[in-house]
Amino acid sequence: MEKSNKGVQLVGFWVSPFVHRVKWGMKLKGIEFEYIEEDVFNRSPLLSQINPVTGKVPVLVHDGNPLPESSIILEYLDEVWSHAPLLPLDAYQRAQARFWATFADQKVFESAWLSVCSKGEIQEKAVKDAIGHLERMEEQQGGRRFFGGDTIGHVDLMMGFVAYMLPVWEEVAAVTILDASKFPNLAAWKSNFVDHPAIKGDLPFKDEMFTYFQGRREVHLQRI
Amino acid sequence: MEKSNKGVQLVGFWVSPFVHRVKWGMKLKGIEFEYIEEDVFNRSPLLSQINPVTGKVPVLVHDGNPLPESSIILEYLDEVWSHAPLLPLDAYQRAQARFWATFADQKVFESAWLSVCSKGEIQEKAVKDAIGHLERMEEQQGGRRFFGGDTIGHVDLMMGFVAYMLPVWEEVAAVTILDASKFPNLAAWKSNFVDHPAIKGDLPFKDEMFTYFQGRREVHLQRI
Repeated sequence: MEKSNKGVQLVGFWVSPFVHRVKWGMKLKGIEFEYIEEDVFNRSPLLSQINPVTGKVPVLVHDGNPLPESSIILEYLDEVWSHAPLLPLDAYQRAQARFWATFADQKVFESAWLSVCSKGEIQEKAVKDAIGHLERMEEQQGGRRFFGGDTIGHVDLMMGFVAYMLPVWEEVAAVTILDASKFPNLAAWKSNFVDHPAIKGDLPFKDEMFTYFQGRREVHLQRI
Repeated sequence: MEKSNKGVQLVGFWVSPFVHRVKWGMKLKGIEFEYIEEDVFNRSPLLSQINPVTGKVPVLVHDGNPLPESSIILEYLDEVWSHAPLLPLDAYQRAQARFWATFADQKVFESAWLSVCSKGEIQEKAVKDAIGHLERMEEQQGGRRFFGGDTIGHVDLMMGFVAYMLPVWEEVAAVTILDASKFPNLAAWKSNFVDHPAIKGDLPFKDEMFTYFQGRREVHLQRI
């Protein structure tokens, strides 16, 4: 960050769903930021310097202070730019939102991603697990416009990859996880999410994602 | 929770390090609560009712509202009973505390626990990983009384298992992870932690932990 120690920078990678969460959060709050694209397969000295522990993106740099981890960054944005809150204001509702955000981030993400990186029995189990986790999210979604009600918020951003990236993963891995006829709430939510003004204009192109994840799948299958 | 819908109940299991985090948090804040011991190997209908998603302890029940997951419960306690704060008040310091709390909860815990549940090469790698993660925590600890400075707080509670339970795990698994000569900051912190008035009187007995974890190790080794 030698160029500038002031303002907000986001170090990211074009296809990372974790980076997009932070971009969306800043867009929703109207925070101006400089975006710095990182090559995660050939990490820059900058990334090693601002995130020595995990070396992963996203990293938010605010007035020279670096902060990694998308969920922690989103909470930080919500505390520093407290207008247009992402988390509910009620303490119990906040806690529940954190629970479901973590569930989406860990359970849903990990099982769905494993289905992209595997085949045979492991893939079958990953698909089954992902469907089971989505059944929980379907129930939790409850038919509202967004997870927290009429307004897009923390859980939506953490689940966002399901709306625009999971369909690409399903195609790449030749599996069906989110069957719209079995997940009517999530199917409707997907449309509400990708049509939201803060989300719509800033998603990676589908064919570029397809090519990228096809390549990742091949790499992972070679490692099995 | 048919008996009472008011007040605070904690559903736990005597040896769970996650449950202890919540107990400590409530003790530090002076919150009165009813403790309900759960048999996690033969889950009660109560537990299935208040935590249908993961079925795990701890579950906090506040005025009839159930909430699982120790780190989420600690944040909830900090918001509802805001005196004697566990997290720093400064937003950037809070975010950093969340980062290290998650690191302790995931990286340190998972590698150290794997060393108890494994042998041979897997165990060797788990020990190596755990030492590597503790090197990060050693640096982060920085020689202060507690992770956040003079006062015990969120990161200390999330790391607490390292202070009183890791020595038992090391003995059960016949490994050395936290060599005091290589981790002077963490060694001093361990004493500060277990000597704290809120911690001291409410730890499981060492011999009971040893017997319990010896049994768990045997069960896990049979599954390999």
